[in-house]
Amino acid sequence: GGVPVFDEIIISTNNLNKIRDFDPISGTLVCDSGCILEALDSYLAERGYMVPLDLGAKGSCHIGGNVATNAGGLRLLRYGSLHGNVLGLEVVLPNGTILDNLSTLRKDNTGYDLKQLFIGSEGTLGIITGVSILTPRRPKSVNVAVFCLNSFQNVQEAFIISKGELTEILSAFEFWDIHSLRLVKNHFFQETKFPLEDKYPFYVLVETSGSNKDHNEEKLHNFMEILMEKGIVEDGVVAQDNTQLQNLWSIREGIPEAGSKSGSVYKYDLSIPVPVFYNIVEDISKRLKDAGVFGKDKLVTDVMGYGHIGDGNIHLNIVSKSYSLEITKLIEPYVYEWTEKHKGSISAEHGLGLMKAGCIGYSKSQKMINIMKQIKQSIDPNGIMNPYKYIYD
Amino acid sequence: GGVPVFDEIIISTNNLNKIRDFDPISGTLVCDSGCILEALDSYLAERGYMVPLDLGAKGSCHIGGNVATNAGGLRLLRYGSLHGNVLGLEVVLPNGTILDNLSTLRKDNTGYDLKQLFIGSEGTLGIITGVSILTPRRPKSVNVAVFCLNSFQNVQEAFIISKGELTEILSAFEFWDIHSLRLVKNHFFQETKFPLEDKYPFYVLVETSGSNKDHNEEKLHNFMEILMEKGIVEDGVVAQDNTQLQNLWSIREGIPEAGSKSGSVYKYDLSIPVPVFYNIVEDISKRLKDAGVFGKDKLVTDVMGYGHIGDGNIHLNIVSKSYSLEITKLIEPYVYEWTEKHKGSISAEHGLGLMKAGCIGYSKSQKMINIMKQIKQSIDPNGIMNPYKYIYD
Repeated sequence: GGVPVFDEIIISTNNLNKIRDFDPISGTLVCDSGCILEALDSYLAERGYMVPLDLGAKGSCHIGGNVATNAGGLRLLRYGSLHGNVLGLEVVLPNGTILDNLSTLRKDNTGYDLKQLFIGSEGTLGIITGVSILTPRRPKSVNVAVFCLNSFQNVQEAFIISKGELTEILSAFEFWDIHSLRLVKNHFFQETKFPLEDKYPFYVLVETSGSNKDHNEEKLHNFMEILMEKGIVEDGVVAQDNTQLQNLWSIREGIPEAGSKSGSVYKYDLSIPVPVFYNIVEDISKRLKDAGVFGKDKLVTDVMGYGHIGDGNIHLNIVSKSYSLEITKLIEPYVYEWTEKHKGSISAEHGLGLMKAGCIGYSKSQKMINIMKQIKQSIDPNGIMNPYKYIYD
Repeated sequence: GGVPVFDEIIISTNNLNKIRDFDPISGTLVCDSGCILEALDSYLAERGYMVPLDLGAKGSCHIGGNVATNAGGLRLLRYGSLHGNVLGLEVVLPNGTILDNLSTLRKDNTGYDLKQLFIGSEGTLGIITGVSILTPRRPKSVNVAVFCLNSFQNVQEAFIISKGELTEILSAFEFWDIHSLRLVKNHFFQETKFPLEDKYPFYVLVETSGSNKDHNEEKLHNFMEILMEKGIVEDGVVAQDNTQLQNLWSIREGIPEAGSKSGSVYKYDLSIPVPVFYNIVEDISKRLKDAGVFGKDKLVTDVMGYGHIGDGNIHLNIVSKSYSLEITKLIEPYVYEWTEKHKGSISAEHGLGLMKAGCIGYSKSQKMINIMKQIKQSIDPNGIMNPYKYIYD
């Protein structure tokens, strides 16, 4: 949901929580925007389908918010982005017009695809009240393996091999570094049942999902054999049942919370080309160490990187005892400039919101921003939708 | 390419034919817009990747045109639409501004996703000069089977079962009716090696693509057993080698040409919900028969339906000895009204162009059209881009 900063009015879509229609032949779901992601997924599970989107906040986030922020999540690698999966939207425009475009058609080439403008617009053009989305078949068999690796080069090689060997059943390729792991173990030490040693610099979680258990396991087995033969991984574990599978996922999903429990966290959500993906963590660590603020008994206690290798999306978290201008100035605009230099995006899946409203120039040219402002001006001439945020001057 | 109707100038992108970059880790391809689809696919094939788009015209069509028309094609079912696969575009706007948004990032939530407006805009907002696109791994094994069915109800059931059994390896689910088959056999009788009898009302072509030959064949075998056990199909054939595979595909791909060789063809490209998908063929046939213009020695010689079941996209072709106002009036606006009534789209993948520029109202509300016109006005105030077409008044 949105957070009021100055004089905004917050509109809750909590009561817009009805599923309107589901077609079991095509797999199209039409629902109110206030439906909770997990509730939709449970509804679909009973019918053999799934939401093509999964994220840590699934128990509380609304599908309308997911669409408005173009949420990415854990399985974008497999099912693609909401720009491909959303078939239609119902939107209330600032002037009260209701755009009724709740199409359930997979193909419709009649005019500009207006719904795309609202996907990722963070409420600045209108309020989404209804969503039509294409849902894939729920896999009959899911496997998860976690590997320990000695270099980021090996992480990349493991990723390339996974695409070749697991191809159509690969559903997640997540990674975290040793700093992330140690933080999770510190803060959830009672619950943590992580079967691998925390002495390797990198860990990856590979998930496969498919329609045939034996086939999936055979493919995963072949994949692991290649990794071991080539000496790409040091150690690894495959979940033997659903509890172990959930445990392995909980390490990855627990990282953001472990960070928040450890201090004040500077969070960056960056898209960076895979070859230089992890360099940002090393560079910013060195920068903070050189400045004498990072280390034992220093202000900054942890710098960690984790995220979605498959999408080139890294979460850089810098844990500090408190927020301070000194630290902020060391990090920003350094991180944004670094990202711009490597042709990355300063907001991969989290959006611009208030804090990054002035930073869009690091990822988009002034020409692009001008056209965005033209569109904003054209649809919301009074600037009443989610003011002060996004591309607000 | 575009066709000048009145006083337009045609700009050729033939010489914009360079591949600019390919990243084998992420599978992102950046190229000029005049690259030929098949040339791109051959380039990617050598690197183990493929273009996530395939259509009959691949030997001559440009990737820029594919994007400008949001081409669908034969494998949208598996790889999704260009709205999901295009990562960035370089576009020359009507005022000469070059929008340089050739991002290769899978995730980038910084501002409105402007490139989406140009996908399917048919050149009315600017000229696409560069394309960045995400390409999937090329499957190591492809299988094709064709089945004969006695009812459209059975076609639907076969589709549902294919989604359950073939799930992640299903790459095409195409269909044609007996009228389409007879036309192809008539016009390509020397080349046609179709191993099934032309006495069944419906035929479907199922293609699987995956990374493991044995697994794929086992899944396809299981699928066929279920179809036969349940009595859903009457007969069927599986391609035993690549030649047979190409032969089976050539039946489906030869239908449009067979139609054109038989007379003047009224062509409709409709998205229709699958349950009523085929009714349009039956309804229009009856309408033309009732009017006394369809049958032996009549003006209309054939009415046929074929297309992409997986996408809910039917191609309705009406073959006539010549175009005539009498026939046109019997078909239009009947077909458009029929489609509107069933919440379909009057242009699934072919676009509006000149002929359907005035017909968008059958698939989009006046509110939607108004916003489209606002956007057109904002980006192309002088109306110089592809005039007279699309949403032109």
